[in-house]
Amino acid sequence: MKQRYFFELSYLGTNYCGWQKQPSSPSVQETIENAISKLHSFEKIDVVGCGRTDTGVHASNYFLHVDLPPKFEPEQLKFKLNGILPSDIAIHTIIQVDMNNHARFDATKRTYHYFLHTTKNPFITGQSYFFPQKLDVLKMNEACSILIGTKDFTSFSKLHTDVKTNICSISHAKWVALENDMLRFEISANRFLRNMVRAIVGTLLDVGTGKLTHKDVEQILKQKNRNSAGFSAPGQGLFLAKVEYPFLNERLT
Amino acid sequence: MKQRYFFELSYLGTNYCGWQKQPSSPSVQETIENAISKLHSFEKIDVVGCGRTDTGVHASNYFLHVDLPPKFEPEQLKFKLNGILPSDIAIHTIIQVDMNNHARFDATKRTYHYFLHTTKNPFITGQSYFFPQKLDVLKMNEACSILIGTKDFTSFSKLHTDVKTNICSISHAKWVALENDMLRFEISANRFLRNMVRAIVGTLLDVGTGKLTHKDVEQILKQKNRNSAGFSAPGQGLFLAKVEYPFLNERLT
Repeated sequence: MKQRYFFELSYLGTNYCGWQKQPSSPSVQETIENAISKLHSFEKIDVVGCGRTDTGVHASNYFLHVDLPPKFEPEQLKFKLNGILPSDIAIHTIIQVDMNNHARFDATKRTYHYFLHTTKNPFITGQSYFFPQKLDVLKMNEACSILIGTKDFTSFSKLHTDVKTNICSISHAKWVALENDMLRFEISANRFLRNMVRAIVGTLLDVGTGKLTHKDVEQILKQKNRNSAGFSAPGQGLFLAKVEYPFLNERLT
Repeated sequence: MKQRYFFELSYLGTNYCGWQKQPSSPSVQETIENAISKLHSFEKIDVVGCGRTDTGVHASNYFLHVDLPPKFEPEQLKFKLNGILPSDIAIHTIIQVDMNNHARFDATKRTYHYFLHTTKNPFITGQSYFFPQKLDVLKMNEACSILIGTKDFTSFSKLHTDVKTNICSISHAKWVALENDMLRFEISANRFLRNMVRAIVGTLLDVGTGKLTHKDVEQILKQKNRNSAGFSAPGQGLFLAKVEYPFLNERLT
């Protein structure tokens, strides 16, 4: 009898083609499945992640579910897996859940962070986007207010075959100034479309440099046209930072 | 007529054989000399660093001096060099100094930081040492007090031909707990011997795990024997963090 487990993990995406398995490049998913398989007589293992991340995108908070025979206690399984997995993937918590809990469908809220730095910094290469231009953070935050609410984000998406709607509910969007000339963009929603955060970041950077105005962003959103938005900010600055499940809230603290 | 310039810089040491030029591996020194040379009609350039760093060791604060014709304003030179240099080396300040100011001989105090983490963390690989054991930080800090003062550090050095004395004056040595199960060791002295900080860190970690006691560290120091100390902690956690020059103090703030 298999049991369902939720894993809370984090990974540095630099050396992966993203979360999702690909035929020719190493993915986070495949790396984790192989590690679990090694501990279960090389049985084929399928894990279900909370969502996709693109090439080079990181996750400081990620969840997956997997059905396994109860061979190990969760703490023991976590310890063994962290020993097998490379240093860029870490399992933080493993808990047993109901068989109907689902890492992708049960997530009610996701938060992404996007980091950038405006002064050259050797220690954050690969985890932040170097953008050496003056930015009007106040204007960028004013433009954020346009995004808040339940809206059609077609203008900020990539052509995506398996979604029925481009409507997302954004509950939070804000730029925060950090030390060492770094900025963090925080955005939370019930769901995100493919490429959406990076297109939003690129568009807000165009606002910060004065290329676009508050009104332009309103227009872009209204046009529901994928060619309207600004450039897509590179993946290296993007982190999936929080995934929330109502049934897990009290169990993870 | 050449003029002397001091450069304040930082670098990630991961991809270098250290500061010092080597015949076959890329060094930070050579990379900077080549970049300056490119801006000066490929004239041969020699820079003098404030000290050596080993393979994979980083510097969050480093100084060099170099004599150049006054072809560029310091700000302009800094901007051009940062464009040529790779993302793991950043020039922060360039100032003109007297021709007798020397980056190595005039430094009166140097501070190193050593970072380690006791819980797996994908985002600090290469900039911190993963040491997944319980550490008694109180005992480690008690042992630090033995190091403070003007003492012979032969036990914590490598065989080193070009130094006449192994006496160093340690003014500060302390472990600080940071968030995310990270620790930072801070140590300041007028000078350091080759491998000294890493041998001290390894020895203090042996105190933290209970392998060595306060008394043992006293004995090791007294023995003046390079084989007495604990293991040498790996280079990836080590940062040259501050170099002080009395004549620069007021000019850099």
